[in-house]
This record gives sequence, structure tokens and C-alpha cells, in this order.
Amino acid sequence: MIRFVPVLHIISLLLLLIAFFMVVPLCIAFFQDDSHIVFAFGITIICAVVVCGILWWLTRPSDGANHHLRTREGFLMVSASWISASAFGAIPFVLSGTIPSFTDAFFETMSGFTTTGASILTEIQSLPKSILFWRSLTHWLGGMGIVVLTVAILPFLGVGGVQLVRAESPGPTLDKIAPKITQVAKILWFIYFGFTVLETLLLMLGGLSLFDALTHTFGTLATGGFSPKNQSVGTYKSGYVDWVITVFMVMAGTNFGLYYKMIQGKFKDILRNTELKAYLAIYVIAVLIITISLLNTYDGFGRSLRFAGFQAASILTTTGYATANFDIWPVAAKSALFILMFVGGCSGSTGGGPKVIRIVALFKLALNEMRYMARPQGVFLVRIDGNPVKKNFLYSVSGFMLLYIMCLLLVTIVVSLFGSDLITGFSTALVTVGNIGPGFGRIGPTMNYAFYHPFVKWVLSAAMLAGRLEVYTVLILLTPSFWSKK
Amino acid sequence: MIRFVPVLHIISLLLLLIAFFMVVPLCIAFFQDDSHIVFAFGITIICAVVVCGILWWLTRPSDGANHHLRTREGFLMVSASWISASAFGAIPFVLSGTIPSFTDAFFETMSGFTTTGASILTEIQSLPKSILFWRSLTHWLGGMGIVVLTVAILPFLGVGGVQLVRAESPGPTLDKIAPKITQVAKILWFIYFGFTVLETLLLMLGGLSLFDALTHTFGTLATGGFSPKNQSVGTYKSGYVDWVITVFMVMAGTNFGLYYKMIQGKFKDILRNTELKAYLAIYVIAVLIITISLLNTYDGFGRSLRFAGFQAASILTTTGYATANFDIWPVAAKSALFILMFVGGCSGSTGGGPKVIRIVALFKLALNEMRYMARPQGVFLVRIDGNPVKKNFLYSVSGFMLLYIMCLLLVTIVVSLFGSDLITGFSTALVTVGNIGPGFGRIGPTMNYAFYHPFVKWVLSAAMLAGRLEVYTVLILLTPSFWSKK
Repeated sequence: MIRFVPVLHIISLLLLLIAFFMVVPLCIAFFQDDSHIVFAFGITIICAVVVCGILWWLTRPSDGANHHLRTREGFLMVSASWISASAFGAIPFVLSGTIPSFTDAFFETMSGFTTTGASILTEIQSLPKSILFWRSLTHWLGGMGIVVLTVAILPFLGVGGVQLVRAESPGPTLDKIAPKITQVAKILWFIYFGFTVLETLLLMLGGLSLFDALTHTFGTLATGGFSPKNQSVGTYKSGYVDWVITVFMVMAGTNFGLYYKMIQGKFKDILRNTELKAYLAIYVIAVLIITISLLNTYDGFGRSLRFAGFQAASILTTTGYATANFDIWPVAAKSALFILMFVGGCSGSTGGGPKVIRIVALFKLALNEMRYMARPQGVFLVRIDGNPVKKNFLYSVSGFMLLYIMCLLLVTIVVSLFGSDLITGFSTALVTVGNIGPGFGRIGPTMNYAFYHPFVKWVLSAAMLAGRLEVYTVLILLTPSFWSKK
Repeated sequence: MIRFVPVLHIISLLLLLIAFFMVVPLCIAFFQDDSHIVFAFGITIICAVVVCGILWWLTRPSDGANHHLRTREGFLMVSASWISASAFGAIPFVLSGTIPSFTDAFFETMSGFTTTGASILTEIQSLPKSILFWRSLTHWLGGMGIVVLTVAILPFLGVGGVQLVRAESPGPTLDKIAPKITQVAKILWFIYFGFTVLETLLLMLGGLSLFDALTHTFGTLATGGFSPKNQSVGTYKSGYVDWVITVFMVMAGTNFGLYYKMIQGKFKDILRNTELKAYLAIYVIAVLIITISLLNTYDGFGRSLRFAGFQAASILTTTGYATANFDIWPVAAKSALFILMFVGGCSGSTGGGPKVIRIVALFKLALNEMRYMARPQGVFLVRIDGNPVKKNFLYSVSGFMLLYIMCLLLVTIVVSLFGSDLITGFSTALVTVGNIGPGFGRIGPTMNYAFYHPFVKWVLSAAMLAGRLEVYTVLILLTPSFWSKK
């Protein structure tokens, strides 16, 4: 039986935490914006403290110790976290009148917390600063949550790429990164925080204001893509800014567990990491193809490389920033970006999509199948990081790919049923389930999601959630066996 | 080391066989068409008999017995068969001047032998009857080849769905359908031939001429889709004809091994067949959805059901016939057809696509993963036909899906690079790799492939071949380890 009380206890704590972070935009509103914006944040925070405080108190464990979540409660907790955070985070948008419709506000906040970056806003720059800051902060918090979730929590629940690859470990363990979830979380947050400070400083050196530097850093490290500027990073027309963000996007798309290993000095482990090598190889190849195809569009190799490097990183890591309207680029460049949309970042990163490790595993599996077909006597193992991969991991990856494709098709159909052509539908599915944000055509980098029917926006919110939480984590809640009392 | 001599021996025999079948259009040309058409077929047959006869003689085994193909030679033989048959079958089109370009003629013949049904012809009805008959006959021969290949030959090579599902059999065997390939082939051809006679008679009862009945039967049973009419089956505007073809399309999309079991009286095996049940369920659901969405397009339930039943069968079985321009149907109907394009027929049928069994296996795998996640102590097996599925089958399916998707993306890009938008590119990839034929938009049911660049036509020919031969069989020839002498 699933107990709801411990889940409610954690959720109320989470919302209190988010309310705590909301104090920052409150302060910004106090100094920069109208009083009704201050009111919007203030009332949200106060309500959260009262309601969630009481809820937290009422659901506390009777013995005074911590609740011990069971596996299924863990799954419920994860999905419920993102949903309740998005519902709660949407309130200031509605109360301030900046996004009057709750549907739109929920979509925007879900897009923030899932680090997707799909926006329903048609005019961004004219919004109050505090609202824009909060919008970007949802990325940063969501990215933080995702790193901890994928590197620390999901492995214990038996999902995700990181732990499952460790063929030698007997069961769900953390590859000895650290003995306890809280300790791992602390280390990861420290790295995440360090990167945030570093990128903000580097961007300020490039002439950005603290506000612009911070918000863009939030969007970068979370591989989110919200920008407080109408023209995204393209506003700055600065090669330096582009390159700084490019480098940090690539870093954010890398497994955060590897940075911990770097701190520990385990460079051998990093060099042996199959996913990292594949990720960088895919990136470099894509950049080369796009650069060559852009030589006629931009003046010279340097500029082409800059735009190609930025956009390839933005799409591969599923960030979704844009320095140019890539929807009007030559077909070769667009094709390369289209392919990157099917890859995504590394496991244990803030990036979305199917993840490099899954593509690599299936590719190696397919190659092995062919070797085996040519030589039925041979024995061929799929090796990742130098070790043979567990059967369960390959099963999990295969099932994942089917569910991922089914999600894509389902979203395509829903979007199409509400008046879009199949193509726009598929493009929308690809960039929401993949947590990318902008796509091609009507949802291109200069467009937005405002025109969609409210029902479609709810479905897309669900799509972003499913994509963000590795599909399984959300879909499992829809199976009868999950809820059965056995 | 791969020996080419035995492969050449078989290929020359195959071409002699095809030349033998070419006598039928030769006779039609003699009685119905111009003398230069007679000449085109005549010279092709004579050349084939002389060249292939000599080649067959030169490559005969020195000991007078049969060549024993090794596994890798088997793979080479399969791909070489389809390529050489298409090159050879294209000659009458070129010599007769009906399709002057060899590229176009090769595309059309490859589309015929792979039972795809994609055509470069803009005006069909005005072509000589013998040429149209030959065009449809390539379907019939290709379908025949595919049934024997997938039910009898590929299992020995370790590819394809049929044998791999039999978890209880120790290795590549034929599930005891019959002890030898030749015997199985004879039984299957007998069934195939029986269906051909039956459908032809039923269509003639519906008022079709022998010529029309035969050519449409060829297209149906091979799940090909070439029609000698510009408006495909829609020409007849007859509910009876539509329903006859619908039923036979569904039958052609079913595993031919099951008909053999029916003859043997093993009805229990048929009822227990997971793939058949899933196939029929998918069909019925799709028909219901399309019928409902068509109620406003066509007059009343009966007519809607007729068009829905026909088109769903045509797309699911990858035939590609049309009784209506489904490209202008409501989005719900188009969406359902779009989904069906990702499924395909049953294994061991003449249908293309990824095949129902693979979708079912992955779906069950994904469900089991979720059950396992919710209850890590439990043991969950993927069962098909009541038996647990072998690990190797699931690996093979997973690898297949990745290769299939990679093929789709690769073809999408090539088509896009030659001036189409990404969307037309993807649609084209889906219907060529899936051996469907007509798709949406510029290659819709009232359109054709004539406008594509010659290079694209060659790539699409390769795509049809790869899709038809279960991808692995063709791609394996591109791996270095296949050709290595070890």
C-alpha cells in the first residue's frame, strides 16, 4: 500500500524551500518593480509558509524520526514534486497579472522547472525584472533538482542511466560516489553553485549586468533556455558571451558525477567514460557539419564556427538558447540540429532528451547483433566504460526508447488534433518531450507557444514532465499494478 | 573468407527464373502491344538466358552436388538477389522507352520487388498493358521471395522475428514447420498461389477484367501497392471490390506460417499467437478511430467504415493502395494512419515496417520494466505466444529499432539536402524504409516520386532494400568485420 502522508510531508518541505528562494525575486520587486508585484510574491510566500508549514507539521512522523519512503512512494514523490512545484511557482505570475491565465502560468513554470525553456510569452523584455528573475530561477532550481534526482535518487529507485551502467555493482548503489543521498546532494550542489558563480563572473566580464549574467547562467547550467531578452543570447552580438555560454552549456550537458571524480582526482575514470567520449564526438562532428554549411550564411570561418558551436551545444544539451534564427539556416545545418534533438545530454547532467548513453548502448547492441549474425559462434559483449553491460540495463534502455517514441507520437497526435499539421505536431513533441524548448517552424527560435489551445498546453506540460523524469518515472504512476495493494 | 562463386551461381539461377516469368508479359505484349515492346521483353529474356545460363554453368560446383552456403554468403546472397533482380527487371522498362531513365526504371523495379509501391510514373493508365503487367508481377515475385526469405531463409541466418520468438528452441530452427527450406518454400508458395487464384476470381466476380483482377491481386498479396490505374483501387468505386481487397490485404499482412498451421489443424497455436492478436487489435482500433473521424467526410457509417477499413489495412500492411486521397482527411484519421506507419505487418508476412512482433515485444518489455521498478523483488518475464522470450530476441529487437530509426533519419537528411523540407524528407523516409509507398504531402496518394533528384532516387532504392530485408541483412554488408578474412 502506498502511504500518502510521508509524500505530503516531503512535498510541503519542498514548497517551503521554493518559497524561501522566492524571497530573492521579492527583494528585486521591492527595489525595482511596482507594489502589486511585491504583493504577488509576498502573498505567495506567506500562504506557502502557513499552508505548507501546517501540512508539514501535521504529516510529521509520529516517532519524531524521518519518514522512510518505500520505492513506490519514491516514484510518487518525484512526479508530485515537479507538479506541485510548478503549480505553486505559477502563482506569482498569475497574481502579478504578468501571465493572467493559470494554464499559461503553469505551462511556463513547468517549462522552467523541467528546464525545457518553451515559453508562451510573446513579449519578454517589458516584463517586471522580478518576474523575469523568478522565471529564470525556476530553471536553476529545476536543474539542481534534476542533478540530485538522476545522480542520487533515481538510481535507488532503479531508473536512469547512471547506476545501471555499472555492470559490476550488485544492485542499486551509487557507484560509491558517496555513501548517502544527502551527502551526494551536498557535493553536487556545491559543484553546481560553483559553476553558477564562475559563469556569472565570466559573463559580467563580457559586459553583462549582474541581472543579465545571473539569469543567463541559470538558463545555461540548467540547460533550460529561458532568457530575459526577446532575442535570447543573440541580443548581445558578442563572440565572447557566445563562447562562454557555449562552453558552460557543454559542461552542463556532462554527467555531474564526473566533476566529483575530477575533484577526487580520478582522471582515469573520466578518460574511460564512454558516454563522455561519445557526447564530445557527436558535438564536434555536428559543429563541423554546421560550420561548413554556414560558410555562405555568415562571413568567414570564425563567425560560422561561433554560431554553429553555440547552436549545436544549445540543441544537443537541450538548452534551447539561440543566437540566430536557425529555422532559416541551410538544410544541412537544420538536419544536423534535427538529429541532435534525438540525442540529448549525458546521463546525470541537467540535459534532457533520450541521453547519449542510451543511444551509445543501442548502437553497440546493434553492431554486436551484426557481428553475431556474421559469426554465430562468436561471443560479443556490449562494453561501456570498459565493462560489460548488464542485461537489465539493455532491457531498460530498449523499453525506454519505445516509451519515448510512443510519447512523441501521442503528443504529435494531440497537437495535430487541435489544428496544427502533423509536422508542427511532431516538431512540438520532439522539443517538449526532449526538454529542448524551441523547434522548427511555428515554434521556431523566434516564435513561442502562446497560440496553442489550453488543452494542448496541459498536454505539453505533461510531456515536459514525462521527458524530464525519464518517462518511466511518470508513466509508472499510470499502471494499475503500481496502485494495487499487493 | 567469403566465396563469391556460389553466390553468383544462385543469383544467375534467380535471374533465369525471373526471365522465365517475363515470358508472361512477353505474350501479353505479343497480342496487345506494339512490336517494340515485344522486342524489349524478348531481348531481355534472350540476353538473360545466354548470360545467366553461361554464368550458372561456369559457377557450378565442381563435385556436381549443390553449393553449401555459409552464413555470411547467405547474407550476401539475399541482398545481391534483390539488387540484381531490380537491375535486371528494369531493363524492359528502359528498352521499351516507357521509363527511359535507368535510374527511374531501377527505382520502380526495386519498389516492385521490395513490395513498396512507390512510383515515379506520373501517368500510368496509358502505358502498354504488358509493361503494367510486368510492373505488378515484380510485386508478386518480390512478395513470394519475402515470404520464403523471412519464414524459411532468414531464421537460418539468425535474423527476423519468426524463429527468434520461439524461446524453447535451442537455436535457429524452423519451429518444425517443415524439415527443409525447399519443402517449406513449396508449401508457402502453394498457399500464396492459392490466395492469388482466390482473390483474382473474387475480383472478377466484382466486374474486373482478368488483367485488372490479376494485377491488383499481385499488389494486394505482396502488400505492394502498384495499380495499373491512375486512381489506384479508387477507380472502381465499388464497395465489393474494396472489401475483397481489404480482407486480402489483412490476410497478406499475417504470418504465412500460420496458414500452414491452419492446414495442419493446429488452431490452438493460431489462437495463442500474440502477434496475430495484437495485429488484429491494432487494426480494429485504427479502423474505429478513422471511421468515426470520417463520419462527416463520407455519407453515413457504412461508407466511412469501408474507406477506413481499406486505408487502415493498406497502411498497416504497408500495401499503399488508396481508394481516397487520405492526405485531405481530418487530422484524427491522418494521425491514426501516421501511427500505423510505425507498426507494419506481422513477421513472416509480405508486409514491411518494423513489424507488429517487435512493437509488442518492446511494449511488454517497457511494461515489465515499470512493474519491476514498482516491485524490485518481483520476477517479470516477457511472454510471447505463452512462452518466455529469449534474451537474444529482445537484444535483436532493440538493436533493430535503433538501426531502423537511424535509417529513417539518414534518409530524411539526404532527401532534405536535395531541396525538400525536413517534413517531406521524414515522410519519404517513413514510407520507403517502411515499404509503404505513398505518404503525406508531396508524396501523397495522388502524387509520385518523379520530382526527386536522381541521387535521391538511388538512396531511396537503397532505403527500400534495407527496409525490406530487415535492415540488419543489408547493413551487415557494410561492416568491416563481415568482410574480414578471419
